[in-house]
Amino acid sequence: MKLDAQWITGFVDGEGCFHVGLNQHSDMETGIQVLPEFSVVQHKRDVQVLHALKAHFKCGVVRTDHGDRMAYRVRKLEQLLQIIVPFFMKHPLKTKKRVDFEKFRDVLLLMEAGDHLTEAGVVRIRRQIASQMDRDQSR
Amino acid sequence: MKLDAQWITGFVDGEGCFHVGLNQHSDMETGIQVLPEFSVVQHKRDVQVLHALKAHFKCGVVRTDHGDRMAYRVRKLEQLLQIIVPFFMKHPLKTKKRVDFEKFRDVLLLMEAGDHLTEAGVVRIRRQIASQMDRDQSR
Repeated sequence: MKLDAQWITGFVDGEGCFHVGLNQHSDMETGIQVLPEFSVVQHKRDVQVLHALKAHFKCGVVRTDHGDRMAYRVRKLEQLLQIIVPFFMKHPLKTKKRVDFEKFRDVLLLMEAGDHLTEAGVVRIRRQIASQMDRDQSR
Repeated sequence: MKLDAQWITGFVDGEGCFHVGLNQHSDMETGIQVLPEFSVVQHKRDVQVLHALKAHFKCGVVRTDHGDRMAYRVRKLEQLLQIIVPFFMKHPLKTKKRVDFEKFRDVLLLMEAGDHLTEAGVVRIRRQIASQMDRDQSR
């Protein structure tokens, strides 16, 4: 199944998720692990669409999410920065999910600069995510 | 906001719904009112996308669904047959929602032939919808 770029943008406007997780992690110098993730979750009946996304982006994995749900996920910083972000810069999302994407991209750029490895940087990343959450709550 | 046809197909693959309602209706000779509907529901923050769909298809309405949800809906048989069905024939859905669409189209064609106005016809329409539900349950 071959996917058109605009179809992908429309589908991700509906079903995609741009998320930055913050996990407590005692092995890290900052005590916090920053985990950015682009994902699309579908019922297993549509797993072929997730594989088509993986084939289009040439990165990421298709795995069971939970129960009957499958997920396409990209978590590697380099792939997010070099493949996923440029795609959605070229083919902008049309829903308010675009704002989620822009905050996600801003966190990735902070990570590219190494901010996730220092305490001051993690503060900046937290601030980005918090501004995202404020917006979510005011929706 | 101008929408690309492929973006619309991708968004409807995620968020669209092709539904045929059957209402008890004592005024109808058959006792049953057949109510086909194409709809897309979104949080009110993305109402501009629903208006863009309405502008693209040049039919339908944007109304409150419930609470913070807004809906774009097309219910008129003529508009469904002349605008919505040809669009998704030309730009096929990529998820299993395509099967919902095909059953929906089959019911519309039965209605175009007047089946919703006779008891035998309503039996045929029910059979279409039931075959749809069987599929849903076997998912």
